[in-house]
Parts: sequence; structure tokens; C-alpha cells
Amino acid sequence: MSEEKKLTPRAEDFSAWYNEVVLRAELADYSPVRGSMVIRPWGYGIWELMQRALDDMFKATGHENAYFPLLIPMSFIEREKEHVEGFAPELAIVTQAGGKELEEPLAIRPTSETIIYSMYAKWVQSYRDLPILMNQWCNVMRWEMRTRLFLRTSEFLWQEGHTAHATAEEAERETLLILDLYRRFMEEWIGMPPITGLKSDSEKFAGAVRSYACEALMQDNRALQAGTSHFLGQNFARQFDLTFQAENGQQEYAWNTSWGVSTRMVGGLVMTHGDDAGIVVPPRLAPIQVVVVPIVKGDDTQAAVLAKAQEVGERLKALGVRARVDTRDNLSPGAKYYEWERKGVPLRVEIGPKDLEQGQLALARRVIPPGAKRKEFVPESEAVAGMPARLEAFQGELIEAARRRREEHTYRGVKSLGELQEVLDNGGGFVYSGWSGDPAVEQRVKDATKATTRVIPSEEFRSAEAPDRCISGEGPAKMEVVWARAY
Amino acid sequence: MSEEKKLTPRAEDFSAWYNEVVLRAELADYSPVRGSMVIRPWGYGIWELMQRALDDMFKATGHENAYFPLLIPMSFIEREKEHVEGFAPELAIVTQAGGKELEEPLAIRPTSETIIYSMYAKWVQSYRDLPILMNQWCNVMRWEMRTRLFLRTSEFLWQEGHTAHATAEEAERETLLILDLYRRFMEEWIGMPPITGLKSDSEKFAGAVRSYACEALMQDNRALQAGTSHFLGQNFARQFDLTFQAENGQQEYAWNTSWGVSTRMVGGLVMTHGDDAGIVVPPRLAPIQVVVVPIVKGDDTQAAVLAKAQEVGERLKALGVRARVDTRDNLSPGAKYYEWERKGVPLRVEIGPKDLEQGQLALARRVIPPGAKRKEFVPESEAVAGMPARLEAFQGELIEAARRRREEHTYRGVKSLGELQEVLDNGGGFVYSGWSGDPAVEQRVKDATKATTRVIPSEEFRSAEAPDRCISGEGPAKMEVVWARAY
Repeated sequence: MSEEKKLTPRAEDFSAWYNEVVLRAELADYSPVRGSMVIRPWGYGIWELMQRALDDMFKATGHENAYFPLLIPMSFIEREKEHVEGFAPELAIVTQAGGKELEEPLAIRPTSETIIYSMYAKWVQSYRDLPILMNQWCNVMRWEMRTRLFLRTSEFLWQEGHTAHATAEEAERETLLILDLYRRFMEEWIGMPPITGLKSDSEKFAGAVRSYACEALMQDNRALQAGTSHFLGQNFARQFDLTFQAENGQQEYAWNTSWGVSTRMVGGLVMTHGDDAGIVVPPRLAPIQVVVVPIVKGDDTQAAVLAKAQEVGERLKALGVRARVDTRDNLSPGAKYYEWERKGVPLRVEIGPKDLEQGQLALARRVIPPGAKRKEFVPESEAVAGMPARLEAFQGELIEAARRRREEHTYRGVKSLGELQEVLDNGGGFVYSGWSGDPAVEQRVKDATKATTRVIPSEEFRSAEAPDRCISGEGPAKMEVVWARAY
Repeated sequence: MSEEKKLTPRAEDFSAWYNEVVLRAELADYSPVRGSMVIRPWGYGIWELMQRALDDMFKATGHENAYFPLLIPMSFIEREKEHVEGFAPELAIVTQAGGKELEEPLAIRPTSETIIYSMYAKWVQSYRDLPILMNQWCNVMRWEMRTRLFLRTSEFLWQEGHTAHATAEEAERETLLILDLYRRFMEEWIGMPPITGLKSDSEKFAGAVRSYACEALMQDNRALQAGTSHFLGQNFARQFDLTFQAENGQQEYAWNTSWGVSTRMVGGLVMTHGDDAGIVVPPRLAPIQVVVVPIVKGDDTQAAVLAKAQEVGERLKALGVRARVDTRDNLSPGAKYYEWERKGVPLRVEIGPKDLEQGQLALARRVIPPGAKRKEFVPESEAVAGMPARLEAFQGELIEAARRRREEHTYRGVKSLGELQEVLDNGGGFVYSGWSGDPAVEQRVKDATKATTRVIPSEEFRSAEAPDRCISGEGPAKMEVVWARAY
């Protein structure tokens, strides 16, 4: 394995590093179908753990899972004017089925508002049938010209929540509840602390009244939109006749929200924690949290070392640790270390004849804190019993490092296009400025710098002092806004 | 609710009963897209529990999950001759995407052998890379002319396992391992004990060397093919150049297996246990295992009754029971009973002022054994602590009843077409006979009786005495075979 080509360092070419690291960690692979990727077991294992955690959070807040059709009649998508304008260019369309031309072409869902609200219209009669709080885990298709593994693929996996409410206030509360749920998930599970806020009109979801987003800062200081939550108002309810009899006897349109996160988050995980040796998987999302490598010499200690490795593996599993004992006999210990480092397994246990003699284990962390030793020798029982705590500590350090990096690359109170350009020229990051709210300013900034508005920040992410002038230099600021170059 | 139309009794029209019961239990609904259904939360909840149990079984036997593209180039499907003949008439085809005609049409996967083995070919070099044991949970599409909720829909959800092995023996072992895993799952979780065996050539999977199936007997004595496991030989490996260097240095083609079960099993669950009051969900697959209904009188006992109901619900949850306290204030207790019966919740707890006084709970089972009382009054703490055991007992009774029914409608040693016809005229079931193995006999029987060969039974399902003559009356039997009218 040692003769394998080294990864391109992040500092040299972040984009090349990303592609290499995803392929070599066996997270995903290119497929023979343009724009579609194959998610390999290591990548899918991370996604499964993401799903499990999010699904528990959705259920704890009263949501239920369901499943709606993959194919949507074109006439449905065309009903909501902004929706079709936004999605029509990206649709994949089925025109033949069962050996015949279809009378009406069917689109592969790019998102499911239209088909889902048409069903809700059938199910809802009275305010007693509300709220409906449903979610589905599924695949969607948006035909993309330039694709990147996990970050932008024609087909991707996601969850899409769709809710219906009797009042605007309740729907708005739901939108913000989910936005905060996403933020907590990204912080606590991915260790990727995002900022949250409102999207500008030019960046919002096609068909929404208001879109909110989680935006995370990657190691190359570009922003990744990692999750969105939309207040749809009555836009879809009107088109699909989703009405209910209110408590006062009146027929009213329901209020909707929709929200989603996708396999894109796996890309975010890679770009948040990866280093020049490979990816780093936060313990809570690692399919294997601890790998146990027996160091066998082919002498009479071999059987005892292997037995001890198995025993340690079993004891770790009994503590709820996802442990794997790597007993492959065709690889050297060094080759194994290299492979599991590249795949980002958080902790490694090494057991050799000497450790056995001394009743100790050698522990190695995937990320070595500055000043710490590469390996730590710990008495066996202490090492085993302390493993869950070590994993949680590692998780906490990843979050802290990511938060620190975000703060180091956050620039507040930027006052002009020139200043913004200077920040971007020096590496970039989240750039806070005042804004009049005029879309022409967004366009001008984008043309000049390739930076776009990411969010109008939620209260907790606003600057202590509200900016008074628009970044354009023309007139007062109506709000604070965050700029960044984005994925 | 009481004025709602009664269900069509099973004895009157089983097919009408099935459709009504699925809709009224809110398992699923028709969608505006021909042939596609909506799986509603109650039905999806059952599917999720099926998935969880099967997924644990797959992982315990060394399989990993992955995800492969939805769209498959037509040229891939065309490579395996029998495969394309079998699936071409049912394909849904994307011809336009991103606003353009595609150069090569893409089929929505009807199954994924072709795309998956093309990827395995890229990943496998040596025998050391084998076996590959992967599974994916996904949607597939087979355009159907006549559809039935869960039983036959154009789009359905399933899992498809795909493995690659260095030897034929190992692949055959895998095929049978999974066949038995499916059988155990259907027995132990769905309470739907199938027979297993080999499919005849005319009934096998398009592209397989040998197909094995689980066949369960529904209450109308028709067979449901509920899961299949295929030994693919080297058929796909040859077409997709899936080769490896064997231990002896030779380049060889790998041996493949594929296997799947789908949302069709939810239909099997309904037709195995449902009765004229609705569906019956086996406790292990019930999203709600116990519903707690407080009987409030609007007097000064109301608060205490509600508090006790909540307390009982919490105590049940603490024991790992999926309990729901139904506190809706717009429905009478009777309306609630009716709704949860229709949805098949196994056990119901009623708590009224009198029960509170007496320190007891009233327990009602969804299925009342002959001679038993409708309700049982049990001291509260005993009722709560004993709930997991009651649920397991209920599960066991469902399995036993289904096994008894299957045996009652199994007819062995049938010797002629006339005898077969007589069995079918008297209600039908699994009919065992001798068979020469000649496909012309299958065709003749099918034309005359609409019965098809279900399986050449596995050893454990064979008759004690091997039949000596073919059912056709012409010549000796080469094997025993099971006939039935099937879904």
C-alpha cells in the first residue's frame, strides 16, 4: 500500500483533494450513468447513521414517515408558477412505459410538494385533521450539468418533510423548529456548526414564501448550504385545493412547510474534518468507531495476541462501541493503519506481544492534538472502559475545531465591495455587511466577486452592532447579510 | 363512525375485502399516478419495522448496505439476453432530461443486476476482494397493467441483495442462506409461515440459473410469492466482465446471487391475519402494540382517569412496549375502539373510573380466541408488567393459526388433473403432485385450472412419500411439485 500515490494536499488543490479523498476512502464512486454516483458501504454506513439520528429527532417532534410516488405528472409540476420555472430545466422525464408512449409525460420527482399536497387535499376535511406532519426518505433527481460526488449529483438521497397547518403562525413555528433541529443535528452529530438564517428572494426555494437555511463553512472557506426549511404559505394549497373547515365553520386554505437535508451532508462532513491523510469521521457517525489491529509476528505469541484482540473487540461492543477487529492476514499492520486512517476511523487500538505482556493497549487517535504523542499506552481495562468517553471527547474536539475555524474566517462589519473583495482575496469566509435588500446589489456583488448572499442571519448569529449602511455604498442598510462563495 | 359502511365480508368477496381493508386501515391510498400507490404512515410504519428486522438479519450475516443509480442505460439491460426479454415489456424509460433528448434512453431500474455487476467488475481484482455481500433498500419500477395496492404496483419499495463469490458452491450456499433467512423472517415476524423451494424454469427470474422462493398461503387459499433468492451462475459476470484472479493465478468469472423482498409482504400480512373487522398486525411489526383508551365521563373523575392512562402509557413504554395513549376529545371510546380494531392494534387497555377505583385495567385483544371473553380485568401492576409476555403470546397464536390454516389447505399425493381441479373447486390451497418436469404439463394445467407450479419443495416441505407418477398421467414423476392459484 505504501507505494500508492499520496493524496493531493488540501493547500495545493482543495477540489482535487476532495475528489481523491472521497474515492480513496471508498465513500462513493463514479457510475456509468452521467451525473449519478454509487454510494459505497462506507459512505452509506455514514448516511445510515445520519438517517437514524435525524429520524429519531423527527419522530420525537411528532413527525411520521410515509412514501409518495417517484413519478409526478407534468401537469402537477406546472400548476405552481414559480415552482415550474425553478425546476423545469432540471427534470428527467419518462415518456415511454410498458412498451408505449405515455399520454402525459411523467417527471421523476425533483421534490414532492405537488404530489404530496394533492394527496393531503384528499385526506383533510376539517381543522381536526390538522396538522399533518409527514416526512419521506427517498431519492430525487435534478439533472445537473456539472456534478461533484455527494455535493451535486443528478440523483441524490434525502428526506423531505411536508406539513400542513391550520394557521400561518403554526406553519412558521414548524419551519423554524426544523431549522433549529437541522442546526443541532449538524453541530452535535456531524460536528459541522452552521449559521442559520433567511435566504434572500433570489436564493429562495421555487414556490416558497420564505426559505431558511443552514450554511456551513468548509475548510476552503466556501459555504455549503446543508439544509433548508421553507414556509410555503398557501401557495401550493391554492393550486391543489388543500382546504379545511376551520373551527368557525369557514372553508380555508391550509398553510404548508417543506424541508430537507440530503447526502450532500456527507460531502460537508468530508470538507469539514478531512486532512491530508484522508477523511475523519466524527465518532457518532462512524460505522466503525474503533479498529483493533493485532500485531502478529508469526511466532508462538500469535494465538494469544489474536485472542486478546478478539476479546477486546467483544468487550468494546458490549459497551456499545462500534468496534472492528482487523484480522486480515494479507496486510501488514502498517497497511491496515493507513487504510483505516484514510477512511477516518476515529480511534485505533494496537495489540502486540509486548502489550500483552504488560497488560496494556496502544491507542492512536485519527487526529493528534498539537503537542500530544502519536500513541498512548494505557492499562487494558482502563483503555476498554474509557473508550466511550474517549470517543465523546474526540467528537467534542472536532466540533470545537470546526467552530473555531468558522469564527476565524468570519468577517463582520464589512463596509464596501472593495473590503469584501479583499477578504475574498485573502482566503474568504463568512462576510457580514449591511444590505439595502435590493437584488441588484446581490447581482452586482456576484458579478464582481462570485460571492452570493448566504443568509440574513437568525438573531443568534447577528453581529452585536447592526450595520447602518448598505455594502453597495448607496443608502442605508435594511438588514445584515452574510456573503460567501458557495458550493 | 358507527354509521360508516361495514366492510365487505371476506367470504363474500375476498378481493373487495382486501381493497377496502387496506384503504380503511390507512395503510395506503391510490395516487394520481397510474399504478403507483401512496404508502400512508400506518402502512409505512409496518414496513419500517420489517426493514429494521431484515436489515439486522442481513448485517448479522455479513452484508453491507450501499446505493446504486436509479437509472440504467438501456444497453446494460440488453446485455443479458433472458434478462432483457423478461423485463423489457415492463420498463419505464427516460428519454428527456435537462431540457434535451438523451442520446441513450435510460430505464428506471426494474432490478439492478446489470448496473451493480458493472460496478463490481471495477472493484474486484483478486479472490481476496471476494465475496462481495451488498444490499440496497430502494424503489423499483415495473410497469403493470393491472395493479393492486401492495401486491402489484408499478413502483414498489424493496431490498435487493447482490453478491459475488469465487466459487459456485459458495454462491449456492448464499442463495439458500438467504432463502432460509426470508423464511424465518416471514414466520417469526409476519407470522406468515411460507413453504420454500425451487421455481420451475418457466417461473424463474429472467437471467437466473436457479430461482428459489418463499410461497405463503393467503386466507382465500391463493399463494403469494413473498420473496425470491436467485443463483445467477456466471450469466451476468460474463456480460459485465466480472472477473478475478483466483488463488491459482487464473482469471475466472465470479459467481453471483441476487435476492429480494418488497412492500408486497405488507399485502401478505393483511391477507394472512385480517378479519371482517379490519387488519390484524402481529405485535412485532405493529407501530402501536398497545393502545390505551381513557374512558372519561366529563365528571370529577376525568382528571384522574386521564392521568392514570398517561401513567400506564409511560410505564409500558419504559418496558419497551410501543404504546399510544389516545386522548382525543372529539371521539367516543367506542369510536376509538373501532378505529384501532380496523388498524389492527394487537392489544387495547381501557381505563374508566371504576377500573381506577378497583386498581385494575380492562384488557381487550384484537383477536379473541374461541371461548374467551371479550375483556379481561387484570390488577393494574400485573397488567402492565405482563404486557410484553401477552404480546409475545399473541404473536405466537397468530403464527400457529396461520400454520394450521396452511396445513388444513395442503393436499398431498394428488394424482391427476381431475383431482387437482376438484381440490381447486373446493376452495383450493397448496396441491402436491408428481411431475415429469416437462413445461408442457405446466402449460396444460395452467390453461385448464389457472393453477401454476409454485415450487419444487425444499426437503423440509416434501411429502413423506415421493410421488411416482406425473400428474399428467403420462410417465413417471421426476420430482414433487406444489401447485396453486397465485397472486
